[in-house]
Amino acid sequence: MDDRLRRQLAFLVEVDRAKQVLRQNPLADGSRRENDAEHMWHLALAVLVLAEHASGPVDVANVLRMVLIHDLVEIDAGDTFTYDESRRDSAAVMAAERAAAARIFGLLPHDQATLFRDAWEEFEARATPDARLAAAVDRLLPVLLNHAAHGGAWTAHDVDEAAVRSRNAHVADGAPALWDALSSLVDDAVRQGFLRRDDGKRA
Amino acid sequence: MDDRLRRQLAFLVEVDRAKQVLRQNPLADGSRRENDAEHMWHLALAVLVLAEHASGPVDVANVLRMVLIHDLVEIDAGDTFTYDESRRDSAAVMAAERAAAARIFGLLPHDQATLFRDAWEEFEARATPDARLAAAVDRLLPVLLNHAAHGGAWTAHDVDEAAVRSRNAHVADGAPALWDALSSLVDDAVRQGFLRRDDGKRA
Repeated sequence: MDDRLRRQLAFLVEVDRAKQVLRQNPLADGSRRENDAEHMWHLALAVLVLAEHASGPVDVANVLRMVLIHDLVEIDAGDTFTYDESRRDSAAVMAAERAAAARIFGLLPHDQATLFRDAWEEFEARATPDARLAAAVDRLLPVLLNHAAHGGAWTAHDVDEAAVRSRNAHVADGAPALWDALSSLVDDAVRQGFLRRDDGKRA
Repeated sequence: MDDRLRRQLAFLVEVDRAKQVLRQNPLADGSRRENDAEHMWHLALAVLVLAEHASGPVDVANVLRMVLIHDLVEIDAGDTFTYDESRRDSAAVMAAERAAAARIFGLLPHDQATLFRDAWEEFEARATPDARLAAAVDRLLPVLLNHAAHGGAWTAHDVDEAAVRSRNAHVADGAPALWDALSSLVDDAVRQGFLRRDDGKRA
């Protein structure tokens, strides 16, 4: 086996650990928390299904590359809960994720390490239409799962309707129809009583 | 929310169940069995990394579409173990998988249902370069994981070296270099004593 293929296989064994990084949102049936590998699969499939709702033309293959690797840094840096304002966007977390990207993508041959590292940077910067679609679908899925599970991470962390709307507002940039869908799910969750209204009272 | 988007979201909630369909091979660290969602993610990422080893030109976006949905039928039909000769390729299993494809892809809007159903048929028929690459990487991954876990499903089901080689021989059609890699992993597993030699004695 040549060195290039050996490095590729070593990378594929290492990223297997994404199957053990737990996220805050549950599976749709509420039976347990989802892991990063499951999420990245669900997200890639959701991109295939929902790409037509992007606000402009996108390169689906590029979006898929981004979403299939976007959470690998959490193997080293851990999952950051969307509604954890102190941790999300903190300099310490960003530094840990940057070091993780260097280590994990660095297992690959140089050209692929650069390609994947660039894809991760593009996803994080959310400055291209492709990255904005990726981010929109990435935010829609946990809302869909928390809704299906009748509360999920919202209940576990006492998140309210206002937090869900404000934290996910950028979905509208990437895909307006998906923002409307997300809003309908939030409305329904409040109506059904498993997401707290922003007036501080349970619906 | 319009009917098209409603159907797309219903499909995405339904396929969440792939996260609960267990396969025979373990995670790389041997701690538990892998599920179909984790496998489809790992396979899609492996296709991105290993596509250069395909025996001819391939359309990576088409391969990704195939692998991201190839095991969805197991939500209804269950996982079929590669080395279970009685079950694999049986008429009953094939009929169950076909019914599952009709039900699950049928949740989508008609054009997408057709697109995904065709992708699944292409994967199953293994008659195009794209499908042959998908099948090659799909067979390499469990070998990589059983090897990393020092036996895994090979030990649990007393599979021998000859069965691993013959069941996976088609990897050579899709990607000769990946067949060489698979052979090296098998050789090493026999040498290390966690895959039974085909002479019936433990190495």
